[in-house]
Amino acid sequence: MKLPDALGRAVRALGRLPALGRRSAERVAFALVRKPALRDELLQALQELAASVGCCSRCGSITARAEDPCAICQDASRDAALLCVVEEPGDVVLMERAGNYRGRYHVLMGKISPLRGQGPDELRIQALLDRIASGEVREVLLALDADVESDATASYLREVLAGRNVRVSRLAPGIPAGSGITYADPITLARAIQGRHEW
Amino acid sequence: MKLPDALGRAVRALGRLPALGRRSAERVAFALVRKPALRDELLQALQELAASVGCCSRCGSITARAEDPCAICQDASRDAALLCVVEEPGDVVLMERAGNYRGRYHVLMGKISPLRGQGPDELRIQALLDRIASGEVREVLLALDADVESDATASYLREVLAGRNVRVSRLAPGIPAGSGITYADPITLARAIQGRHEW
Repeated sequence: MKLPDALGRAVRALGRLPALGRRSAERVAFALVRKPALRDELLQALQELAASVGCCSRCGSITARAEDPCAICQDASRDAALLCVVEEPGDVVLMERAGNYRGRYHVLMGKISPLRGQGPDELRIQALLDRIASGEVREVLLALDADVESDATASYLREVLAGRNVRVSRLAPGIPAGSGITYADPITLARAIQGRHEW
Repeated sequence: MKLPDALGRAVRALGRLPALGRRSAERVAFALVRKPALRDELLQALQELAASVGCCSRCGSITARAEDPCAICQDASRDAALLCVVEEPGDVVLMERAGNYRGRYHVLMGKISPLRGQGPDELRIQALLDRIASGEVREVLLALDADVESDATASYLREVLAGRNVRVSRLAPGIPAGSGITYADPITLARAIQGRHEW
């Protein structure tokens, strides 16, 4: 049975999303053909997303395009001396849900991953150093995942931040090994923020 | 942290897809903001899907809009006396992959599910009876799932098909290929014992 080309392309596009394997991508594509209302709702949501949501030009977090720098960067009541470094824009949302962090953010847009050809130059590390050079930051909190690549990224950052007159801390242990903040519930994450340690 | 409205709508739309829970939907939405290329590829794929893929007006299977009735319905070499009834358009693809079915199809577009307010009238059962009334069909193969709702649907179909001069069959229950009794649940095993064959 020859599937329509457009269906094959949809399966491939869906399969590139995180959390969807090939078989699930196929199941989703079939459902989208069967339920035009579902397909059109998703289509419209993606169009609105493209039109109105992006990443903050300063910190890299998710923000409405109409609000750049983002609300957190613009919030004068946030502690400018405390800067939290995360890997992905979505991690900022998870950190905020913990509810007890009052500093600002810096999103790396990934982590050091030689296997995927991603070195320090592909990350927003120079932008981080520039922000620190401006002088306000006293502490950099590394809220990175707990896998090997994230550890390598944390080690690299500790090195480049040495001698720049900032304390470097990491989230407290409590994040399960081999997992990351993506899967941590708000309470676990809050405790990890509270117990952050020198790095 | 207030997420942009469009992001919330994207999370809700994604969460309605099969195979994506709320947390995964959020993860996918974040990834779509972070990776515009991924978002645009999906957007384009969905637009093409909307423009060129639909369901066959006769059997309900997935087909290019330019080809309706679908290729299987139009294929004169397929056995018109054998009609396979499935729940979803995607099930036709899975049946065809088995490689040894040479009849035609009829998609119900769901199954009887009182909990979801879905009765026989919401399914394409009248269309099935109309096709059978045309006189070509000799056997109806029910290729339905094995859960309670599918069993109810199969029982209902057996009832309405009685006295219409067609044989009604179901897929053989048994041990999946590449598996064995170690992984079979008791009901599956009981059915496989019941249906044992000469060796």
